[in-house]
Amino acid sequence: MSLFALGFSDTITASTAKVGAAYSNVTKSPRQRAEALLEQMTWAEKVGQMGGIRRLFSADLAFNKTSYAEIRTLQNGMIGYGSYMNKAQDVLPLVNAIRADRLNIPYITMTDSVNGILLVGGSVFPGSLTMSSSWNPALYGEAIAAIREESLAMGTRWVLSPELDIGKEPRYGRVGEMYGEDAYLNGEFGTQYVKTMQERDANGFVKVAATIKHFVYGLPSGGVNTASMFGGINHIFNDLAPPFIKTIKEAKPLSLMVSYATVDRVPMAANKWMLQSLLRDSMGFEGIIMADAGAIENLYTQAQVASSTTDAALKALRAGIEMELSPAQPAMFPNLVDVVNDTGVAALIDAAVLQFLEIKFASGVFEQPLPTLDLNSTLRAPLHLQANKDISREAIVLLQNDGTLPLVKKSTGKVALLGPFAEVINAGSYAAQNSSQPAFGNTLHASLVNALGASNVQYVLGVDFTDTEEDSGIETALTAAKDAGLAILMLGSLSVNPEDPLFSKRTDGEDFSHADLGLPGLQQELLDAVLDAGVPTVLILSGGQAFVLNNSTLRANTILHSFLGGEFTGDALVEVLFGDVNPSGKLTISLPQANGAFPINYDYLRTDNEAGASFDGYAAWTFPELSRDPPMPFGFGLSYTTFNVSKPTVSFSSGANSSLAVSGSVSNTGNYTGKEVVQLYFSQQYSLIETPVKRLIRFSKLELRPGEVANFTFSVPVGELGYYVHTEWQVDSGNYTFYLGSSSRDADLETANVVLSV
Amino acid sequence: MSLFALGFSDTITASTAKVGAAYSNVTKSPRQRAEALLEQMTWAEKVGQMGGIRRLFSADLAFNKTSYAEIRTLQNGMIGYGSYMNKAQDVLPLVNAIRADRLNIPYITMTDSVNGILLVGGSVFPGSLTMSSSWNPALYGEAIAAIREESLAMGTRWVLSPELDIGKEPRYGRVGEMYGEDAYLNGEFGTQYVKTMQERDANGFVKVAATIKHFVYGLPSGGVNTASMFGGINHIFNDLAPPFIKTIKEAKPLSLMVSYATVDRVPMAANKWMLQSLLRDSMGFEGIIMADAGAIENLYTQAQVASSTTDAALKALRAGIEMELSPAQPAMFPNLVDVVNDTGVAALIDAAVLQFLEIKFASGVFEQPLPTLDLNSTLRAPLHLQANKDISREAIVLLQNDGTLPLVKKSTGKVALLGPFAEVINAGSYAAQNSSQPAFGNTLHASLVNALGASNVQYVLGVDFTDTEEDSGIETALTAAKDAGLAILMLGSLSVNPEDPLFSKRTDGEDFSHADLGLPGLQQELLDAVLDAGVPTVLILSGGQAFVLNNSTLRANTILHSFLGGEFTGDALVEVLFGDVNPSGKLTISLPQANGAFPINYDYLRTDNEAGASFDGYAAWTFPELSRDPPMPFGFGLSYTTFNVSKPTVSFSSGANSSLAVSGSVSNTGNYTGKEVVQLYFSQQYSLIETPVKRLIRFSKLELRPGEVANFTFSVPVGELGYYVHTEWQVDSGNYTFYLGSSSRDADLETANVVLSV
Repeated sequence: MSLFALGFSDTITASTAKVGAAYSNVTKSPRQRAEALLEQMTWAEKVGQMGGIRRLFSADLAFNKTSYAEIRTLQNGMIGYGSYMNKAQDVLPLVNAIRADRLNIPYITMTDSVNGILLVGGSVFPGSLTMSSSWNPALYGEAIAAIREESLAMGTRWVLSPELDIGKEPRYGRVGEMYGEDAYLNGEFGTQYVKTMQERDANGFVKVAATIKHFVYGLPSGGVNTASMFGGINHIFNDLAPPFIKTIKEAKPLSLMVSYATVDRVPMAANKWMLQSLLRDSMGFEGIIMADAGAIENLYTQAQVASSTTDAALKALRAGIEMELSPAQPAMFPNLVDVVNDTGVAALIDAAVLQFLEIKFASGVFEQPLPTLDLNSTLRAPLHLQANKDISREAIVLLQNDGTLPLVKKSTGKVALLGPFAEVINAGSYAAQNSSQPAFGNTLHASLVNALGASNVQYVLGVDFTDTEEDSGIETALTAAKDAGLAILMLGSLSVNPEDPLFSKRTDGEDFSHADLGLPGLQQELLDAVLDAGVPTVLILSGGQAFVLNNSTLRANTILHSFLGGEFTGDALVEVLFGDVNPSGKLTISLPQANGAFPINYDYLRTDNEAGASFDGYAAWTFPELSRDPPMPFGFGLSYTTFNVSKPTVSFSSGANSSLAVSGSVSNTGNYTGKEVVQLYFSQQYSLIETPVKRLIRFSKLELRPGEVANFTFSVPVGELGYYVHTEWQVDSGNYTFYLGSSSRDADLETANVVLSV
Repeated sequence: MSLFALGFSDTITASTAKVGAAYSNVTKSPRQRAEALLEQMTWAEKVGQMGGIRRLFSADLAFNKTSYAEIRTLQNGMIGYGSYMNKAQDVLPLVNAIRADRLNIPYITMTDSVNGILLVGGSVFPGSLTMSSSWNPALYGEAIAAIREESLAMGTRWVLSPELDIGKEPRYGRVGEMYGEDAYLNGEFGTQYVKTMQERDANGFVKVAATIKHFVYGLPSGGVNTASMFGGINHIFNDLAPPFIKTIKEAKPLSLMVSYATVDRVPMAANKWMLQSLLRDSMGFEGIIMADAGAIENLYTQAQVASSTTDAALKALRAGIEMELSPAQPAMFPNLVDVVNDTGVAALIDAAVLQFLEIKFASGVFEQPLPTLDLNSTLRAPLHLQANKDISREAIVLLQNDGTLPLVKKSTGKVALLGPFAEVINAGSYAAQNSSQPAFGNTLHASLVNALGASNVQYVLGVDFTDTEEDSGIETALTAAKDAGLAILMLGSLSVNPEDPLFSKRTDGEDFSHADLGLPGLQQELLDAVLDAGVPTVLILSGGQAFVLNNSTLRANTILHSFLGGEFTGDALVEVLFGDVNPSGKLTISLPQANGAFPINYDYLRTDNEAGASFDGYAAWTFPELSRDPPMPFGFGLSYTTFNVSKPTVSFSSGANSSLAVSGSVSNTGNYTGKEVVQLYFSQQYSLIETPVKRLIRFSKLELRPGEVANFTFSVPVGELGYYVHTEWQVDSGNYTFYLGSSSRDADLETANVVLSV
């Protein structure tokens, strides 16, 4: 398709704001410039800024000019590229042409941003849950910087990440998009994302505006995407909001997206109390508040708390929604163009548009030149590839190992590679790639062939991702496993983008609720057959979710979890198999022990684990025998070497108890160089409202050679050791326990008790 | 044991209040008399009224006089009998002696009251979930009247029922104690219970004070008994509180017990906001507020929101707790005897004691004579047995039937009876009986032998309740099944009292959370073996819980659910098997289709069932294929005959839209006389906050002969068609839909649309 075919000029120029207009004065602040521009805008122009066109191109660059022309009259704030499967190089000139077409107020370009840019040609990073399993926010920052630069090269100035939701509902299909179950860890990764993405350029422009989302989410009823959540202000503030509060305070995200959730029977897109009293007043959020795609329409069509599309738009606006992420048509906010006699509405629209324009001025879309068409120097730059390789390696979690790993490459003869996941890159819903024929990167199968040679890898699919009928491949797989004497199985749950050829095979991602946390289809049967035969087995799990590992599965000699992989995950897994990389990832979600045994998060309340007035000490969770402290909880992950973490010593590092210094040491007591994540948790003995059995407060990843010892000190301001009581931060005097170690399991922690006086 | 051995007088006299004291004036109201008495009491005497001795006797009437004498100095408000396994006839003279020993302020006797009196010798009714499955509150009232009279015969003046909790968490082990998942149905049964129990005698005394409980409960995290619940005032008022609100308004229960739950991080026993602002101010509860056994101590030892036992007592008192149900020692409220300088505490204690004394005066414990020792005329009176037989018959739910039932007794030869539940009465935690050697009533095995003769019933245990190893009985059972040509299996989940010989085999009841909703032990293997062999099979489920019926189980020709049975459930099942009773029970809990597929209650919010912004209409719950509308939902139950329920017609029965008359007819279109529960649900199109897809608003159980047609009209005040928005009742104008039919399934309902103007 040529630019001419689109009907636009094929001359690429910078977006042109009116020369000489007050809003063009770059010495003014973005807010001042936005105010100046707002004065010149018509009602319709204002309404137009409150939305945009999210899906510009369909697959193969298809573009409906008539539809676009119609839509853009009242939806001209932002544009997005549309199909993930188009090539960046092909999209850029076309989208530049459209940007240039908007002469007065330039579009701002907005995309999702999880695995990378949402077009083929960029780096493909692992999913968010995967990267969080590195427990390495600094390295994550390098990954996000790479995504930022690749986004900028495409002209993207606004992204719809990070996702700060709490992954405590293992059935929920979007856990792979999150940073795991812990509010503190989420805040660390989320703040890193926003700071990195919103870094300022030499001209003082924000490079790319970030969107914290979804306010609030993570524990939907039944694990269903748009389902209701029970409110309760202490629950919201202590369990769900901390990553938002931290990120708002420390990184000032320019944008926030509300969730699809209905909280305490009020949909978030119409929840004035949550958006005004809590988010604005208590949490101090100052950026723009947007509704997720379709969420305003849902008020009318789904939740039925609005009686028309216009009523839905008004309810959302009045609750505090300032922008509508463009869904499929029709959008709701364009209805506001007809509500002309309401000064209250007018004021709300003005406030919303100011927010939107401020981001445009802050990110320089009025001044910055359009991106050049030469993408080669940025997309997949060597630094980006390196960051991707590094985080892919650090994100793999070793769950179980009897010494089978690492394999010795020279003495490893033939291996049997089994399972459908060995032939895909299972990267999640937001990866711009064809999972089974990726443009970049290797599947595990390809990586293993690269390492051992094709003749030493006998690959057998064995079973399909989901099919529950066709089991004839199991026998073939078993024969190969017995023949090789070593079986490597890659099994799991597929999550791919909507245009992927395997989309119909997916069992994870948005829209899914895992009523069954086992392996889909006949995968368990394949695994059982190999284990029944006594073949030494390395099981590699794939998927952005927790799996229940039953007693049969636990017979595997080695179990690794690779979550949602990126383009280098196959290579990294092979490096792990052969000991070129010593695994150092730690779980950021706890793995339940039975299908109905959740929630299973490590930071439960004490009352959540007791049966109450029991006559004879019967514990809860007794059928089948279960525990709130499962063997593979948050923070857990093994290494090829062993580490010993000391008891913590706690001292007051400055006067008046204002800060604690928690010191310890970690020693590598094994035979391999490796990285350990030392984790500091705390609990308090008594509190005004119930507080968790323990909470993560600091962590650090350290590399040690065999025999090496590292000393470290965590500084913890006493003021951080608190909790919210009805929105107020509370820190108590009294007895505190600090737990230092290598996971959230009590068995992996050493403790120190401290009396604090605040 | 003689009375003399207890060290008390063996002369039984009435309790004696001081003659001539102002509080003795029976012309005064209970409140006035309580005020008069309070003036004469010491601080310690007051504190003593705030608790008591719950477990007077251990098994075999064992009694620790030293311990009792020590405890009663500061715990002398109430007494309970203790062990359920003692005989009523043996207990009564002993407890009478103790009552007589309290000369000034008589004890009030308080017991749990679910299946009957908590002593051997009374009628043993089915569990609450079972009785609710009758959908016959009038018949339930007859059962409760029987329990009331048997309680009075023992001198019990205060009971710890009804349980109004919402059974929407199928994992929770106490669902069998509840009336099911629906707030309206719960309110109907709970109000019936309170009105019946608190009926006044000829002297105007309340016969037995009732306790509504547990405020609030039913959706604990993970299904764990004391676990946290998420607050949210709209959730509390719309989902949890309606049965409390209705019962308080219509039946004025004298007592309320708060739950073990932590709601929004504040334990209910210390939750001032819930107890004062919501329960007292918004809901208008005026009775005494008590803490469940151990719940005040839990504030200190478990939730850790109190820093000592005295702090726990004070926090509970200040939150609004007025009485401590006596747990195992130590009790917490006796600590208040040391808090002497606090006038605020003194005032709270006075208020609490007034509440307690008012119940004693209202129920006549000062004046009424001690019960006579002749229990024969009351316990197990013919009317009580008849009510028990009637409700046992109406509570059995027929879930599936291909025509195998009813059996024809004359042509039924030998039957194979299989499974461990055929040899017990599985009645729940509050049944005063030995489940395998019941003093009264028949197991299914015994009932079937009575019906067919021993030579025609080949009973094989097959498998144990819980054992997962011993499977040798399966083969024997299979042989018997093949030989007989008809297999009747009774399988399920055991719930018995703590002193039952089978207590260690139980898998349901307080303390249990069902991470697995299948059949415990090897019961499924036994069932599968019989079904695999193609033997015609009648499966009878037993247990106070939902079971997941997998595809294998659904091969059974007939499936019945008997829940927690009473002494006549075995007989009733045999009557159902042979068509002497046509089943008419309806589920009051929905049956999920997979272990992780919940909540599954019929009255979900619309947003709970949608996947959100799905690209191509993918629904939620897609792995495995599931639905929020399961085939066996709330309200579902089959009959041997067929019924046809008409479309509803709706008219305004009086001016100004104040009331609706919803009329319809039901016809018996089959060949057996039977009872149908016609059910009326409604939904509204738009609302201020989200409202459920449908809600039960009326139901009626009608008996019809073949070919008979019954017309009926439900009167529904428009004011009932509302919901709570932040504690305020809201009724909207707009479009409403009424659904009339035989279950909550859309397929079983006919609709009428109405426009209301309020």
